[in-house]
Amino acid sequence: MKWRKRIVVQRVNLKETERLDDLLVDDLRLIQNPAYFCFSLDAVLLANFASPKNDSKVLDIGTGSGIIPHLMQAKYQVKKIYGIDIQAELIDMAKRSAKYNKVEDKLEFINLNIKDGLEIFKRESFDYIVSNPPYMKAKSGKVNLEDKVAIARHEIECDLEDIIRMSSQLLKYRGKVAYVYRTQRLAELLSLMDKYNLATKRLRLIHSQIDKEAKLFLVEGVKGGGVGLDVLAPLILNDENGNYTEEVKAIYFPEN
Amino acid sequence: MKWRKRIVVQRVNLKETERLDDLLVDDLRLIQNPAYFCFSLDAVLLANFASPKNDSKVLDIGTGSGIIPHLMQAKYQVKKIYGIDIQAELIDMAKRSAKYNKVEDKLEFINLNIKDGLEIFKRESFDYIVSNPPYMKAKSGKVNLEDKVAIARHEIECDLEDIIRMSSQLLKYRGKVAYVYRTQRLAELLSLMDKYNLATKRLRLIHSQIDKEAKLFLVEGVKGGGVGLDVLAPLILNDENGNYTEEVKAIYFPEN
Repeated sequence: MKWRKRIVVQRVNLKETERLDDLLVDDLRLIQNPAYFCFSLDAVLLANFASPKNDSKVLDIGTGSGIIPHLMQAKYQVKKIYGIDIQAELIDMAKRSAKYNKVEDKLEFINLNIKDGLEIFKRESFDYIVSNPPYMKAKSGKVNLEDKVAIARHEIECDLEDIIRMSSQLLKYRGKVAYVYRTQRLAELLSLMDKYNLATKRLRLIHSQIDKEAKLFLVEGVKGGGVGLDVLAPLILNDENGNYTEEVKAIYFPEN
Repeated sequence: MKWRKRIVVQRVNLKETERLDDLLVDDLRLIQNPAYFCFSLDAVLLANFASPKNDSKVLDIGTGSGIIPHLMQAKYQVKKIYGIDIQAELIDMAKRSAKYNKVEDKLEFINLNIKDGLEIFKRESFDYIVSNPPYMKAKSGKVNLEDKVAIARHEIECDLEDIIRMSSQLLKYRGKVAYVYRTQRLAELLSLMDKYNLATKRLRLIHSQIDKEAKLFLVEGVKGGGVGLDVLAPLILNDENGNYTEEVKAIYFPEN
């Protein structure tokens, strides 16, 4: 197996400072570049939390190097997943990864600001939408506007409300959204979902350890859904020794 | 001690079907009547979660038989706690309990619908407000309007928005609110807090067991506060054998 992997690596054209990361699922690999935003656990947890029906048409808003579409096409029987991102270089990497992994028929990556979503996509055309939105306010912290990592982390090109408003506009009636976000802004995100007619139906808090605060959460909503939220059992990342819990191991290393 | 308690019990005038329940704190007892709403764990957890500063003026909206004011005056150095409830019979019980416990100088109970709050209290006059609101929609389930338990559980006389709007109006700037509520309506409650300028600052999900869904939550907000919510470690009620966890024992039986 090592031999085959080495051969394959030689086939992909990596640009300077790019690297090819093993996703540990279906022998998938992803081109990433540490000069840009690289995916983190957030994205893996969101891909796992999402619940698209078979044959769904899916959109990932702010796809980065395409981690979520890659993982979701492996896990679910979806029809097609579109990934959009404002950074052309990330979309270029995502496209090359899809080609490398031979999943170009399932995944389509487009360089687009979500605010212009209706220029490309039809209103109410998606069954399922996911996003790992930028979580820092544009003015908070020290932001270098030239910084490619900052664009992914800060609300520079679009803010949380843009993403939620457009999610609602692009989603079919009774279609679903799923987001992963920082608990610091949980109330704001739930209020915005309510404002744009996305009824929250599932919420899961993510704690580093059972006795620690939650820094992240996963939420799923239904367009036009009624009141009635299920708060799932907490997702605990590490045991008391700092090792991944069995649940996280099963998400991160599904083939072990 | 048993002798003293027996003597004391004889001094209180219990009406038919009333009972005198031991609160297990400071030798406090509470008059309750099973024909009305009796307090549950929700109230005890909320009294424990609240964080009033010393000398605070506190309001409990929908106080029932006065459980939360009784517990809070024992736990915190507050100036005065007002408890209001729409049911005159419950306020009567709460007043007799306060007298029995010799805490009438700290607690004041008033028969009032929160919608009429500004007829009695000055705008922006409280430092801290707590509530365990009715959690069922008026139209949901089978409701007998003559049913005294139903009034406490259903939004018959006032709804969640009335409670949150009036909390905001009665609270000083930078004053705090704390609610215990059902997770089914978590998104709705957080949206309403946002609407009425109560920034959510602390949230705690309550799970019956670590691997079970949360049915209840505790939340604290600050009037005029900024963005930034802490999601605390989950509160787990029972261990894998169904016994109370150490944390719950410490809340429920603080003197053991």
